[in-house]
Amino acid sequence: MKFDVLLKQMSFIHEIDKIKYIFRKSRLFSSDRHENDAEHSWHLAMMAIILADYANEPVDVLKVLKMLLIHDIVEIDAGDVFLFDSVIRQNNSVAESKAAERIFGLLPADQAAELIELWQEFEAAETPESLFARAIDNLEPILQNISNGGGTWEEFNVSYETVVEKKKLIQYGSKHLWEFTEDLLKEGLKNGLLKSEKEKSR
Amino acid sequence: MKFDVLLKQMSFIHEIDKIKYIFRKSRLFSSDRHENDAEHSWHLAMMAIILADYANEPVDVLKVLKMLLIHDIVEIDAGDVFLFDSVIRQNNSVAESKAAERIFGLLPADQAAELIELWQEFEAAETPESLFARAIDNLEPILQNISNGGGTWEEFNVSYETVVEKKKLIQYGSKHLWEFTEDLLKEGLKNGLLKSEKEKSR
Repeated sequence: MKFDVLLKQMSFIHEIDKIKYIFRKSRLFSSDRHENDAEHSWHLAMMAIILADYANEPVDVLKVLKMLLIHDIVEIDAGDVFLFDSVIRQNNSVAESKAAERIFGLLPADQAAELIELWQEFEAAETPESLFARAIDNLEPILQNISNGGGTWEEFNVSYETVVEKKKLIQYGSKHLWEFTEDLLKEGLKNGLLKSEKEKSR
Repeated sequence: MKFDVLLKQMSFIHEIDKIKYIFRKSRLFSSDRHENDAEHSWHLAMMAIILADYANEPVDVLKVLKMLLIHDIVEIDAGDVFLFDSVIRQNNSVAESKAAERIFGLLPADQAAELIELWQEFEAAETPESLFARAIDNLEPILQNISNGGGTWEEFNVSYETVVEKKKLIQYGSKHLWEFTEDLLKEGLKNGLLKSEKEKSR
């Protein structure tokens, strides 16, 4: 066992604890407590295990799990950016790349390279694994908002049309889950959880 | 897509959110905040990804990750039991088995059976995957306590000898990680983070 290798690994394990302090805008199911990035990543990994068969193409589940478990680690440096905040979101990718280099860079070189590459694959949203992982990442807050009487849609005055527009990428990872999501959103519109642009502009 | 199957899966996904409310005795690194079961499970999964090569035998990493991600779900019904509380710990297995049946039982039959079996394998601590997963589960709080000036060892007056006795099972999953742990504990004894039985009885 090479001690210097293990020390680097322990240094990384210690550093990533910090994502437990990064809070998202969304809240836990039926709750007013904001979710932190570690809880979020755990829940996405669980969702991926359960819903893997709905991916548009067969996926390497281990790769999907690793992607989801690491995907928000960059927020230790770059912070969490709310999906419906389009200004910051577009400008955050440089900060996130630097964060990936620094944080995964704490690991021994081979592991650092592996995780940086995996994170880049997730960000690029091209492979079946990344598309499915991103579908799951986008589905969770929808489920939370529905259980929270509108959650962030209510809090940040987000219209039905905007939600559909932002979330339609789910279909590229799973048509089935997008079909389910569309039904949930239509139901939300019907029972007042979501408001259309027309209603909001009255 | 069978809608009733998806509804069962969503019901499970909703239910497991509750582990974010179960707090352990151990605290986050260099912090006084107690760790919840979801954060804990996420961190163990990350540790398993990074430290998999130290397992005594080659392990199916996907299986190890699944085990660690699900292992505390039973605590939704059965509660968290502190490692150094030996009375409750021995009597909690019935409650945990019932919890596994109820909670994993929310899933469609085939997935319920898979996860119940996986949880049982973790509990039985016989296969290389379960032994390595348990080694990781036991290592995390040691790292936390060392960063917290003694953490639960200090708070619950646990001696060096008791820690070594309770934690030696780590070697059955990874001799390398146990060697590292022994060094950490000896260091802790030297610098006063841990006290021996002899010191405590003075």
